[in-house]
Amino acid sequence: MNDKLIDRLCIIGVGLIGGSLASALREAGAVGEVVGCGRDPAHLQQAVQLGVIDRYEIDPAAAVAGADVVVLAVPLGAMQKQMAQIAPVLGPQTILTDVGSAKGSVVRAADAVFETLPVGFVPGHPIAGNEKSGVEAAYPGLFRARRVILTPLPTSSAEAVTRVSAMWEACGAHVVEMDVAHHDEVLAATSHLPHMLAYALVDTLARMDDSREIFDFAAGGFRDFTRIASSNPDMWHDICLANHDALVKMLEAFSDDLRMLADAVRRADSEFLKQTFIRAKQARDAFCDE
Amino acid sequence: MNDKLIDRLCIIGVGLIGGSLASALREAGAVGEVVGCGRDPAHLQQAVQLGVIDRYEIDPAAAVAGADVVVLAVPLGAMQKQMAQIAPVLGPQTILTDVGSAKGSVVRAADAVFETLPVGFVPGHPIAGNEKSGVEAAYPGLFRARRVILTPLPTSSAEAVTRVSAMWEACGAHVVEMDVAHHDEVLAATSHLPHMLAYALVDTLARMDDSREIFDFAAGGFRDFTRIASSNPDMWHDICLANHDALVKMLEAFSDDLRMLADAVRRADSEFLKQTFIRAKQARDAFCDE
Repeated sequence: MNDKLIDRLCIIGVGLIGGSLASALREAGAVGEVVGCGRDPAHLQQAVQLGVIDRYEIDPAAAVAGADVVVLAVPLGAMQKQMAQIAPVLGPQTILTDVGSAKGSVVRAADAVFETLPVGFVPGHPIAGNEKSGVEAAYPGLFRARRVILTPLPTSSAEAVTRVSAMWEACGAHVVEMDVAHHDEVLAATSHLPHMLAYALVDTLARMDDSREIFDFAAGGFRDFTRIASSNPDMWHDICLANHDALVKMLEAFSDDLRMLADAVRRADSEFLKQTFIRAKQARDAFCDE
Repeated sequence: MNDKLIDRLCIIGVGLIGGSLASALREAGAVGEVVGCGRDPAHLQQAVQLGVIDRYEIDPAAAVAGADVVVLAVPLGAMQKQMAQIAPVLGPQTILTDVGSAKGSVVRAADAVFETLPVGFVPGHPIAGNEKSGVEAAYPGLFRARRVILTPLPTSSAEAVTRVSAMWEACGAHVVEMDVAHHDEVLAATSHLPHMLAYALVDTLARMDDSREIFDFAAGGFRDFTRIASSNPDMWHDICLANHDALVKMLEAFSDDLRMLADAVRRADSEFLKQTFIRAKQARDAFCDE
């Protein structure tokens, strides 16, 4: 026993998020040993060489042995399988959390795997990341001044919530709590819908006859607008399925609004256009300072 | 007579674009005198104090007197009125160009004003700018390494095209030529449609019950994605009307594609989602290096 926040941390899925979490905790002196787990030994070896993890295991059951905190940082589509592999060996007091961008699907996966949800299970989601992926993109500052949403369950112990909060605060993040369904609605609005729009826009243009020329004339605004379309396609596939209901609802709400705006353009409705643009500019200027 | 590229430049509309053009030409030593023109003396006085223009006139006819190059840098909705005011006094060899984001409407305005289009008239569009506006945001580097599209008309003299090109090249821009209709299609795709999507998205979220909280949880990707929704509402109103036909066409193409994507999310069509995201990521990675 020493005075570290976490004696042994197990990160299952050592990519941008998992790797940055390990690096941040290490930089903060908040962790003793970091054990990585994943499918690809070469990738994990690279994580060891980068100093992100101390050692690794390919078998999740072996990786979690003796860990006081286990973080699932795998794609949403892989959560249930990983949980099933660690469930039989997870200590009764072990802290289990995840970093998935949708929380309802993670809770459903846990419900399917565990007979009773562990008291140490506290779903979480750091609102951080960028269009890059992989451990080579990981860095300790990724979560600094970012929000982390925890969605504690009725089964989560107060101590587990406190420890997961402390872990993220050690990375410089601000932790807030939210219920699962509300998290999924908020993220559908602020992240999942915008990604769909960026992907759809780039794809629409890419399939036009003169797409090469079109992209040639794209200016800075277009680069900013479409940056999120460079995100990992597999990850976003998983998010679409995992947060299905909330995303469908947002896509419908947005499509209705876009249809109204397109109709206003079609009939050259000056008043409608001006009011919409003014409202949007005011809202954006109020919440973003750049 | 001296060896400047332009002896007397008249900028009608001294905002971000007009002001930056004047500053860039001055920095390049390419202009003798810069005369500004606008409606608001206080604003023009500020432009003088900032060193952007040498002097100003409120009356466009007085402003263009003796100028060898006249640049219309007013909103698209004001083009025709400005042209009507300068038409009677414009010298037969004076170069006349503009910076409007749509070109068909500028040509229609000129057709309505001039009995015969002046040989010096060469419509243009610098692909530069940001979400800011006003002369206080102007700076000489705005056009450096950016594209400027000229859309010469059958009536434009070769000499006029050469001089307008040289003016933009002196600002560090790359000049390309395109026909009017094609310009308007390309810009509808790369700029006008994305602005509509950003405005519509922010407005959709702003009108939700928990909008304050939603914006609180918006991360960096959302900031980038919605930056263009902080653009000038009046300017974008004008662009919607000016590039009406091309924009309506793009809105329809995008709405069809978005409906297909939303349907794929609804029925959890893994293959469709993955293929769309992969195509979009490949396209974006290919044309943008960041």
